[in-house]
Amino acid sequence: MVFDSKIRPITWENGMSKMLDQTIIPYEYKYVNITTGQDMFDAIKNMIVRGAPAIGIAGAQGVVLYAQEGRGIYNNIDEYKKWLLEKADYMSTSRPTAVNLMWACNEQKEVIKNSTSDVEGLIRELTDKAIEIEKDDIERCIKIGEYGAEVVPQGATILTHCNAGALATGGYGTALGVVRSAYAKDNTIQVFADETRPRQQGARLTTFELAMDGIPVTLITDGMCSYFMSKGMIDMVVVGADRIAANGDTANKIGTYTVAIAAKYHNVPFYIAAPLSTIDTSIKTGKEIPIEERSHEEVTHINGKRICAEGINIINPGFDVTPHELIAGIITEKGILRPDYHKSIAEAFKS
Amino acid sequence: MVFDSKIRPITWENGMSKMLDQTIIPYEYKYVNITTGQDMFDAIKNMIVRGAPAIGIAGAQGVVLYAQEGRGIYNNIDEYKKWLLEKADYMSTSRPTAVNLMWACNEQKEVIKNSTSDVEGLIRELTDKAIEIEKDDIERCIKIGEYGAEVVPQGATILTHCNAGALATGGYGTALGVVRSAYAKDNTIQVFADETRPRQQGARLTTFELAMDGIPVTLITDGMCSYFMSKGMIDMVVVGADRIAANGDTANKIGTYTVAIAAKYHNVPFYIAAPLSTIDTSIKTGKEIPIEERSHEEVTHINGKRICAEGINIINPGFDVTPHELIAGIITEKGILRPDYHKSIAEAFKS
Repeated sequence: MVFDSKIRPITWENGMSKMLDQTIIPYEYKYVNITTGQDMFDAIKNMIVRGAPAIGIAGAQGVVLYAQEGRGIYNNIDEYKKWLLEKADYMSTSRPTAVNLMWACNEQKEVIKNSTSDVEGLIRELTDKAIEIEKDDIERCIKIGEYGAEVVPQGATILTHCNAGALATGGYGTALGVVRSAYAKDNTIQVFADETRPRQQGARLTTFELAMDGIPVTLITDGMCSYFMSKGMIDMVVVGADRIAANGDTANKIGTYTVAIAAKYHNVPFYIAAPLSTIDTSIKTGKEIPIEERSHEEVTHINGKRICAEGINIINPGFDVTPHELIAGIITEKGILRPDYHKSIAEAFKS
Repeated sequence: MVFDSKIRPITWENGMSKMLDQTIIPYEYKYVNITTGQDMFDAIKNMIVRGAPAIGIAGAQGVVLYAQEGRGIYNNIDEYKKWLLEKADYMSTSRPTAVNLMWACNEQKEVIKNSTSDVEGLIRELTDKAIEIEKDDIERCIKIGEYGAEVVPQGATILTHCNAGALATGGYGTALGVVRSAYAKDNTIQVFADETRPRQQGARLTTFELAMDGIPVTLITDGMCSYFMSKGMIDMVVVGADRIAANGDTANKIGTYTVAIAAKYHNVPFYIAAPLSTIDTSIKTGKEIPIEERSHEEVTHINGKRICAEGINIINPGFDVTPHELIAGIITEKGILRPDYHKSIAEAFKS
């Protein structure tokens, strides 16, 4: 069953991107208009929009914005296309870990390369592709939700880390898509949300979107997961993903790996929920996934106020890699992939 | 070797308790005077003073403060003693998990019961006992530090959770006592400090006291420990304890258990550092340790500002219990206890 959620973090309207500013949730719920390619690059980098599928949509829209800016600047379509392909490559570097961004920018590059239209025609094709990626993403999330709901036990408490929700996608969510579909069938399920320091996407975004949709949610700090697992209070874990290697190793928000280890220790099934576009079959294992090192201030400051002593060291990896052996299944729009992931992933891409 | 640290969170001066206000570190370094028993009860409850050994000292001083208040109120010494024993019991309930508090209040109850002096004589005896507990605590920490330093590898990176430092004791620290003694021998060691949400004692206190003593410290968020362990960047974990059962199960600040599971998964040795007064041989396993449920605002607010949506659930256990099988050793003032803890703990109490 599909849950009716109205949350749309990013859409295309009147030739520009209309984007929910996720840096100010839960204090404000405000849309901003992104009108240039560089502004889109910065919005992705500064996490106005975030979440692997959502920044894929943003990247595709960013290429459209550049295409609009390039109007009338170039003498011929080949020069225009050459410039635009460079801009698509640039857009794909706005964040390094989530592969959906590279995937979406590549989709736009294919449109550019294959187009036989003039400038205005190409802009229309790129716009159509960006809208298609957005629509498809919601459809994919709903399918992920439906497949995932099948493995949610009656009355389950589902732990999640970070925000792989409607806010991280075109809408509906991946991990929270599973929650929404499960809740539509069984309104006795509930969610435990990890705060997810340093940027607190669990506290700020997951509690916000679940409360908005009326799904019961309990906020816990990141260190508490094992305590609740040991009390038998967590029935399963579902999280999103930023990049999945061909062997199932999964990069996701920092702290995910710690939850996965705790889940293994307590025999709590740990699932990844992600569209196939998150799987990067070009890399063999998680060791090859680049891990973004983010600003130290994310660790040392909360809401602009310093929380620690001066003159100390900081390391701030934005992601970690959960090895495939800790993952019970990868919930995709084509069903739940199970170990051996090398095989099940290859098969999912074939069919 | 003993490291020279000047940090003293709680001392007895001029008939009152002089206490560092730990709720405002690292923003301010300010002592407050506690002059009544009820103020001491509140200071412990509100964590102006915190850390299992330090609140033991505080509890002992609190009984002295009540003894001073009771001067001249009672007709005879027996009525005075009866009232004071009740106050000592009350003081021991200011926080439920750390056994050192009950231990110290019991020490004072023994003084009261065994005293043959008049009121003024008894106040002197209780004062002497409180000062003795404080002095002994620092001595015990130094011994813990010396024993612990023996198992710190050359150039090690030591991960710790919460603050089991000079600020949690009479001075020098338990877990950070091990760090100090190790650093005195080998200044190439360094510390990774978990932030320790919800109250951030790692970010606020551990970074503060190590920076003050010039020992290199890197602040990480609670979810990051597994990432750094998987990179081979953590050589050992040392944490404090609030209560240890006869089988070695150890209650400590929430999040400790998660770190212990991660350490086990990566074969990183996980040590507890605590005085014998933290061991409660009257309880068989960790299941019997009461876990304090603290204010929801500790989870929902940081520095007075809400960090999550309204209308959501919160559970805030202050502690968790790490099962003995995850613990490589318990570093005490009588040496490092090893499994089988049932035996080694019993022997430590005999000798």
